[in-house]
Amino acid sequence: MSGAPEFGLAVEARDGAARMGVLHTAHGDVHTPAFMPVGTAATVKAMTPEAVAATGAEIVLGNTYHLMLRPGAERIASLGGLRRFMNWPGPVLTDSGGFQVMSLAKLRRIEEDGVTFRSHIDGARHALTPERAVEIQHLLGATITMVLDECLRYPASEAETASSMQRTSRWAARSKAAFEARAGHGLFGIVQGGVFAEQRAASAAALTEIGFDGYAIGGLAVGEGQALMFETLEATTPHLPEDRPRYLMGVGKPADLVGAVARGVDMFDCVLPTRSGRTGQAFTRGGTLNLRNARHRDDPAPLDAACGCPACANYGRAYLHHLVKSDEVLGLMLLSGHNLHYYQDLMAGMRRAIAETRFAAFAADFAAGQAAGDGAAAAADA
Amino acid sequence: MSGAPEFGLAVEARDGAARMGVLHTAHGDVHTPAFMPVGTAATVKAMTPEAVAATGAEIVLGNTYHLMLRPGAERIASLGGLRRFMNWPGPVLTDSGGFQVMSLAKLRRIEEDGVTFRSHIDGARHALTPERAVEIQHLLGATITMVLDECLRYPASEAETASSMQRTSRWAARSKAAFEARAGHGLFGIVQGGVFAEQRAASAAALTEIGFDGYAIGGLAVGEGQALMFETLEATTPHLPEDRPRYLMGVGKPADLVGAVARGVDMFDCVLPTRSGRTGQAFTRGGTLNLRNARHRDDPAPLDAACGCPACANYGRAYLHHLVKSDEVLGLMLLSGHNLHYYQDLMAGMRRAIAETRFAAFAADFAAGQAAGDGAAAAADA
Repeated sequence: MSGAPEFGLAVEARDGAARMGVLHTAHGDVHTPAFMPVGTAATVKAMTPEAVAATGAEIVLGNTYHLMLRPGAERIASLGGLRRFMNWPGPVLTDSGGFQVMSLAKLRRIEEDGVTFRSHIDGARHALTPERAVEIQHLLGATITMVLDECLRYPASEAETASSMQRTSRWAARSKAAFEARAGHGLFGIVQGGVFAEQRAASAAALTEIGFDGYAIGGLAVGEGQALMFETLEATTPHLPEDRPRYLMGVGKPADLVGAVARGVDMFDCVLPTRSGRTGQAFTRGGTLNLRNARHRDDPAPLDAACGCPACANYGRAYLHHLVKSDEVLGLMLLSGHNLHYYQDLMAGMRRAIAETRFAAFAADFAAGQAAGDGAAAAADA
Repeated sequence: MSGAPEFGLAVEARDGAARMGVLHTAHGDVHTPAFMPVGTAATVKAMTPEAVAATGAEIVLGNTYHLMLRPGAERIASLGGLRRFMNWPGPVLTDSGGFQVMSLAKLRRIEEDGVTFRSHIDGARHALTPERAVEIQHLLGATITMVLDECLRYPASEAETASSMQRTSRWAARSKAAFEARAGHGLFGIVQGGVFAEQRAASAAALTEIGFDGYAIGGLAVGEGQALMFETLEATTPHLPEDRPRYLMGVGKPADLVGAVARGVDMFDCVLPTRSGRTGQAFTRGGTLNLRNARHRDDPAPLDAACGCPACANYGRAYLHHLVKSDEVLGLMLLSGHNLHYYQDLMAGMRRAIAETRFAAFAADFAAGQAAGDGAAAAADA
């Protein structure tokens, strides 16, 4: 590992709270603000890794929960690690499995030591502790490892939230102790505390005291709504170190990304672009299109004339409508690719705007385009 | 259309009954013997057209039956034709719809004028006559148009077969009359006659008398078995003009292709490579692999070490097994691409062997590889 660059964020420009920079890792640089496509089961769904890279993505996310159940972390390690297994040469961030244990697993039981649960695939019993979550991510060969956190359902009371946030801090300390430092690799803590500003500040302080290579913000986009999410971000990012990357987990819609970057977030992941692609929905500079709608069936226009992705360069909406209506796999492929391309273009646009200190104007233009398009499209696609 | 090359086959080499050559068309050359991937609903399933071309394919097939029902031939015409609609710049052969009417449509009724049926999608009533089948293929912009033929179920009596074959000849004459000649475009007749040698000869004679740009052999690979199929080919190809392409419809397995080329066939189409890819089956130089089998789960070896496709260049069997077991779309994509690549490599190998007058040795090597691999794989994958 000698020769690998030090892991860390070089902030190159600021515009208000928004930051633009480069995250250096052992497996390549990531330009921030960055969007990470989700490669749940060692594949970004319906995409080759070459196509993912062609959208502009520089880092992908892998899911510890899914991979520990199938094909298994030890198996992936023996096959050379996740990056080699799935043919993604760039950096990979793996989550800790905590969120999926809450949302997917059966018969889960959370105690101070960790969580036990049954697989949603075959019912087999598994355990995750902070130490095992770190070990699994090491076996996967993750560039960025996430601590195991406790994920509460929303809404939760202030007392429940505080108790859970404190456990997450204790687990974070155990994760840090279990993590084996390697050049160019990082370990991120996860700020919890629900929508309670004081708890967010306390969580950020506790994690900063332990010391991590980056700080994630968890427990948002779980039903609280965009306004409360933004308010919570404003109560959180000022308490995080300026020189470390900030990652808003599981977010979100294009407008969520723009608003979160304005509030100092550097990294995102979300299944929305690929999941929406699989249900016939396309994100565009003019708002969201539902390709199932019959109004598209004779339309030779591309999804988004300003987009350079293969779907927009080579096909009309009529063809994409036909693929979606016919349940053709190529429809999933082209729309997933387009949506990821749109997200990466949005991130690149934000990076340029921050570098040129015109982020507020960029955000206003973005909102105007979405509102105009959303209105027209929503009426027609309803 | 001035400037388009004349449609026709230039035979460049012969080895026994096997021929190697180039089919010139308005939309590009096709090296024969050629395998045409099937693009049923204006897409080769789970493949981009760029990926299809990268396998070595030079022509694809479109299905008149599927396209007339959805999205409709007139709609495709108004969108610039099938090649533009699906972004396939090369030649396209469209079938006449006759086979799918028999195998998919409901409440079909065949009379001398043509066939009426109900759509398997929405039950709507449709009609196909020889003239309408030609018109639809013109609307689609087909490079090669097929006459409407009557497709019998197997087995059929000698009398039924003769009556049906004669109707197919009458329909062929009507198709020829309806076809609008354009430079670089061709119309193919379809030899019928079941497994009856005299009827095959009579059908070939009747069609040759009408005169077509190529001759298809229909009504095989419907349950008669490989031996009887080869016997029927031997009773058919000698009655077809030496200077026109011969196309064996809907065939087949790799061994079927090798045996049919040995008997003078130039063109093939079959859903097998893509359909098998979607069920986890891979064709290789060592026989057929079932990727669902647990024996592959720790195996880092490529599907076929001699194959240059993306699946073989970038992934191990363990990863492909994981994708198939996890129902991941990328599994369909990679296996469909590999199988098409394998088929195209097989055709290219046959073309070289014919050019070098060593086709018999090629066929023997092919069979030995398949038998060795089939034995081992069948035992392990059972």
